Amino acid sequence: MSAAPPATDRDLRALFAPASVAIVGASDDPEKWGNWLARGALRAEHRRAVHLVNRRGGEVLGRPAHRSLHDVPEAPELVVLAVPAAAVEQSVDDALAAGARAIVAITAGAADGDAGGAGDAALARRVRAAGAVLVGPNCLGVFDAGAGLELVPADLPPGPIGLISQSGNLALEAGLLAAEAGLGFSRFVSLGNQADLEAAELIRDLARHPETELIAVYTEDFRDGRAFAAAAQAARSAGKPVLLMAVAHSEATARAVRSHTGALASDAAAIDAACRAAGIERVAAPQELIDVADGLLRAGVPAGRRIAVLSDGGGHGGIAAGLAQAAGLELPPLSAELVSGLRAALPPAAAAANPVDLAGGGEQDLHSFDRTTRALLASGEVDAVLLTGYFGGYSEYSDAMGRRELEVAEGLTACAAETGRPLVVQSMYAAGPAAQTLRAGGVPVYRAIERAVGVLGRLAAHGARGPEGVPAVPAPAATLGTAGYHDVRALLAAGGVPFAPARSAAGEDEAAAAAAAIGYPIALKALGLVHKSDAGGVVLDVRDEPALRAAVRRLDERLSPPMYSVERMVERDAGVELLAGARWDARFGPVALAGLGGVHTELLGDVAVALAPLDDAGALRLLLSLRSAPMLQGARGRPPLDVDAAARALAALSRVAAEHPELCELEVNPLLVRPDGAVALDARAVPAISPPRPAAR
Amino acid sequence: MSAAPPATDRDLRALFAPASVAIVGASDDPEKWGNWLARGALRAEHRRAVHLVNRRGGEVLGRPAHRSLHDVPEAPELVVLAVPAAAVEQSVDDALAAGARAIVAITAGAADGDAGGAGDAALARRVRAAGAVLVGPNCLGVFDAGAGLELVPADLPPGPIGLISQSGNLALEAGLLAAEAGLGFSRFVSLGNQADLEAAELIRDLARHPETELIAVYTEDFRDGRAFAAAAQAARSAGKPVLLMAVAHSEATARAVRSHTGALASDAAAIDAACRAAGIERVAAPQELIDVADGLLRAGVPAGRRIAVLSDGGGHGGIAAGLAQAAGLELPPLSAELVSGLRAALPPAAAAANPVDLAGGGEQDLHSFDRTTRALLASGEVDAVLLTGYFGGYSEYSDAMGRRELEVAEGLTACAAETGRPLVVQSMYAAGPAAQTLRAGGVPVYRAIERAVGVLGRLAAHGARGPEGVPAVPAPAATLGTAGYHDVRALLAAGGVPFAPARSAAGEDEAAAAAAAIGYPIALKALGLVHKSDAGGVVLDVRDEPALRAAVRRLDERLSPPMYSVERMVERDAGVELLAGARWDARFGPVALAGLGGVHTELLGDVAVALAPLDDAGALRLLLSLRSAPMLQGARGRPPLDVDAAARALAALSRVAAEHPELCELEVNPLLVRPDGAVALDARAVPAISPPRPAAR
Repeated sequence: MSAAPPATDRDLRALFAPASVAIVGASDDPEKWGNWLARGALRAEHRRAVHLVNRRGGEVLGRPAHRSLHDVPEAPELVVLAVPAAAVEQSVDDALAAGARAIVAITAGAADGDAGGAGDAALARRVRAAGAVLVGPNCLGVFDAGAGLELVPADLPPGPIGLISQSGNLALEAGLLAAEAGLGFSRFVSLGNQADLEAAELIRDLARHPETELIAVYTEDFRDGRAFAAAAQAARSAGKPVLLMAVAHSEATARAVRSHTGALASDAAAIDAACRAAGIERVAAPQELIDVADGLLRAGVPAGRRIAVLSDGGGHGGIAAGLAQAAGLELPPLSAELVSGLRAALPPAAAAANPVDLAGGGEQDLHSFDRTTRALLASGEVDAVLLTGYFGGYSEYSDAMGRRELEVAEGLTACAAETGRPLVVQSMYAAGPAAQTLRAGGVPVYRAIERAVGVLGRLAAHGARGPEGVPAVPAPAATLGTAGYHDVRALLAAGGVPFAPARSAAGEDEAAAAAAAIGYPIALKALGLVHKSDAGGVVLDVRDEPALRAAVRRLDERLSPPMYSVERMVERDAGVELLAGARWDARFGPVALAGLGGVHTELLGDVAVALAPLDDAGALRLLLSLRSAPMLQGARGRPPLDVDAAARALAALSRVAAEHPELCELEVNPLLVRPDGAVALDARAVPAISPPRPAAR
Repeated sequence: MSAAPPATDRDLRALFAPASVAIVGASDDPEKWGNWLARGALRAEHRRAVHLVNRRGGEVLGRPAHRSLHDVPEAPELVVLAVPAAAVEQSVDDALAAGARAIVAITAGAADGDAGGAGDAALARRVRAAGAVLVGPNCLGVFDAGAGLELVPADLPPGPIGLISQSGNLALEAGLLAAEAGLGFSRFVSLGNQADLEAAELIRDLARHPETELIAVYTEDFRDGRAFAAAAQAARSAGKPVLLMAVAHSEATARAVRSHTGALASDAAAIDAACRAAGIERVAAPQELIDVADGLLRAGVPAGRRIAVLSDGGGHGGIAAGLAQAAGLELPPLSAELVSGLRAALPPAAAAANPVDLAGGGEQDLHSFDRTTRALLASGEVDAVLLTGYFGGYSEYSDAMGRRELEVAEGLTACAAETGRPLVVQSMYAAGPAAQTLRAGGVPVYRAIERAVGVLGRLAAHGARGPEGVPAVPAPAATLGTAGYHDVRALLAAGGVPFAPARSAAGEDEAAAAAAAIGYPIALKALGLVHKSDAGGVVLDVRDEPALRAAVRRLDERLSPPMYSVERMVERDAGVELLAGARWDARFGPVALAGLGGVHTELLGDVAVALAPLDDAGALRLLLSLRSAPMLQGARGRPPLDVDAAARALAALSRVAAEHPELCELEVNPLLVRPDGAVALDARAVPAISPPRPAAR
């Protein structure tokens, strides 16, 4: 149980740009953290006072070491603790007593199992009571390029990316890859256990940090996922894209799953839903993280999905075109005017179609590359150009070719800058001088074509799809006492989900009376069973009273249900059955799910998940995002169905779910959509074993 | 129209290991092909006679140049032509007259448009008549590492890969990437126009070449795709995997498409079908080509999909585990014995689950890596180990750590070699000394985790899935005169496709007579319409003669069809509608297609394609490969359907299609599968506009 985060954001200046810093556990041993941190601190000795603390005193790295924080002659704004786990609590208290405004608790060796434990919560309360902030414990350090703060065990390149990571090695790997791409970090914070400072507060702080242009996050623990998503959405709205690398937990997580919704709205799907809501770009691994960051920072977002592929040689062009189409990009045919303009400046063998193949024209005249790129970008017929293949390697021919190639690279960066349209380059020689010139001029260069195409596809999608918005979770409504079938129906109906008329009945006579009141034909359901249909507990299309009585007697005999539901029979032929549901996620709060119902749900896995509650427009968007959405819109001569009514029902269900954290799963299956409306034909709820912590907003 | 390939394979020794070579067009100009080729030839002057030919005579590269091939003092076994396109024909004749056994025609600048043209075919005929072989024209050269033959414009690293490529630049890129991975090429042939030597013959030759362990192909033009696939299957059976990088042609290729089958069995799907039949690994780009080759050559194929992930730090392990599951690999829980064995040798914070996280144990004791890897591989509980993260970078700490790391790397290669189970490594320091030691010992090392996981997934799939077999195309049967509905039905029925009883009828009275003979209820179809159902030309469940007559009159009025089909009505409720079809592909000959029928086919895109003809087992495998196959096998309490009967019908259709190249598309839609059999409810064929070239086998 961790401490709730503070209500308002704190000033983190003492953490990132302290006037003075103390390293507790500073050491001369080059294999110890206290050594790396002390050396890092000392690199900025000209910018701030550095105090080294070692309980043995003496000298460390040629400076006198204090025996304890009490002996430090001033209040150190930032205290870094490289001490054994057992000493952390005392050291934090010492730091607070010494007047620290920020504490970074490294303490490698603390068992991860303690993360979020009672000790952490108590630590956080003491730190906050003193008006200070704490990073960690069990973290790797902090880094601020502008402030010259390098309290991390490795060199990180400076640059525009604000990095928040729960893994030290992944941050190191991102650093190596960023350096290779000519990128780096404005700030880096290693999250550790997040006892006090959590990712959400750090994202909000980076959104206000002028030197940070893009925020990259690796986390295994979202804490309040809803707050995390809201912070990311705000950052993106402030023009700073957020990239998230999150471990996809195995579907075999501990939570019990007792409905289709529970099984289908997986933990991983909830993360994806939060990313769509917040406009976060989710990435799977460090290389993809840096690649997408490179594209967003250098190339920016194209206005659409239309690209031209340019190569000198048909092979590279064909490979790139195939990958681009698979990535959802379009290669439109070029206009006759553009084609004839291109042809005039190229050798006769060149293919001035899309992909454009210079067919040796590049080798003959290197300026074919920038001339053609300029014509393509300036035409307005494409939103971006992808240059692929040999370019970047002409310096291998001769020094003269190499010099000309650098001029052409300058010309290429100018094309992109002047037209405002992205140019993305794949080069066999991505580490060569022309590639460096391209990067310096704001053009991303990738070694492998699959990476270049993947990024361009992401950029186009990023531009096309803004954040859907992170909805606030409403205050909980009065708890539903029992989650019986008719209770759940009533709750959903009151919330706006349409149902067919129904009555409960305790036996044959009550069932007959209920049927008479509702009118035949009737659907009869035996209640009190987990899977009514699978157990044969549902009898459809009961035409008259004798048939009804016979059906009740048969069910009594076979299943002895405690109660029946007698419902107006709804004709299913002209409709499509959907599944509509919601689930409370431990991290992100309520999530809604829509899918094709019946046998299709599980077989085809065509489901879509979003943060709940949804408004009607959001619910409609979710339904239309299904692969099978055309079935709702009148495919192959069928009449279009009332998708709006289905969306209203789904939105209503999602609102009810969001107001009832005591129901961990809530489901309407099927939700029948017809040309003239939508109607819920069944409903169920799964009570939470212990009520989930509501995502506080 | 190219020349048909020769009936039997030729001896290519003169091409790859000639006793003498002549370079026609040899030049002193370092930007000319004739210069690169001459220099390449001269590098092996100690192994074979090199004759330089330049029509101006004098000296080239310090050697006397002959004015023409006539002046060369011996018959050169191999002649390389670096001459303008216009001079190729004459130069080939000169080479043959001079006694050449092999000719490589470079002639950069020849228009690609001429590929496969009449000129090429004539050239091939003259070369073959002389008992020689020709590579090109319009190619980049040949390379044989063992023979020291370097007739290519760039350095290629030597190694175990036989490379056949239609693109020079892609071959260069593969060369750069191979060198980075410590791999290289046994032979390289640039295909060019394939006037004489085609990819299939070259694959067969490489399969016999002892130094070639793996064959990599890039082609834009398969020629006889069936022969290509058969050659690849034979190579794989000989223990040499074949990797194919093929341009995915846009779906908007020129061929007309007039049935669902035509639209769904795309050109790209036909390539995939050929790859499955032949056991070819298809790759999308050069990096993937070299990565998969690295995995196949070094790690080999695991016995199954079960892997353990090992890291020092939870971040890398979590990322790798998530990607591995997405790639179809399994991370089984480890046995209690194995876990306790691992725990005994690791620090308390280590997670001895799967993924195994050393949690700092690696840093404390580098031998944790090889000890743990050995325990995992030796346990038999997993089929492979994926080591991910920092390993490879400990030399950054200190020289002593670096030396220990090399020992550990040796230990890791020994684990893999001794257990015979693959170890695949991702390292942040993939170019460092430990990584090189791993590679030298037969362990592939990748820089990015997504690449390592992707390869391991491919290796497991490669092992699990042998070639399905490339079927021979049967001799054409007697041509079907007209492709009318009842002709096509009769053809398919004769081939073994079951249909409901049906008769054709020209009007109301004939229809009534036919119905009386067949028995009510009847399905009535108006013939002569392209889409019977969509045009409302089908009336189902006609119960008696008055209803039939009324239906005929209404259809007469609305559609005036020339003819009706009167068919026994088949009850569809208990069945599932499939689509079964076949198409003649210009490269691969007949391909068969299966999919869910009705509205599902197009909306869900759940179709599978295979080379035709299929036998019953192959047809069953194809049906069961559909995502929706569980619907056929009795999902959610439904009775299982007679999938074997559906497979027999599909196999029969595929045989008929393979015997009738004059029908470019042949389709049964729907093929109704019921618990007690399968029955075709409709059929159609699309005549080929010009008969396709049958794939000669």
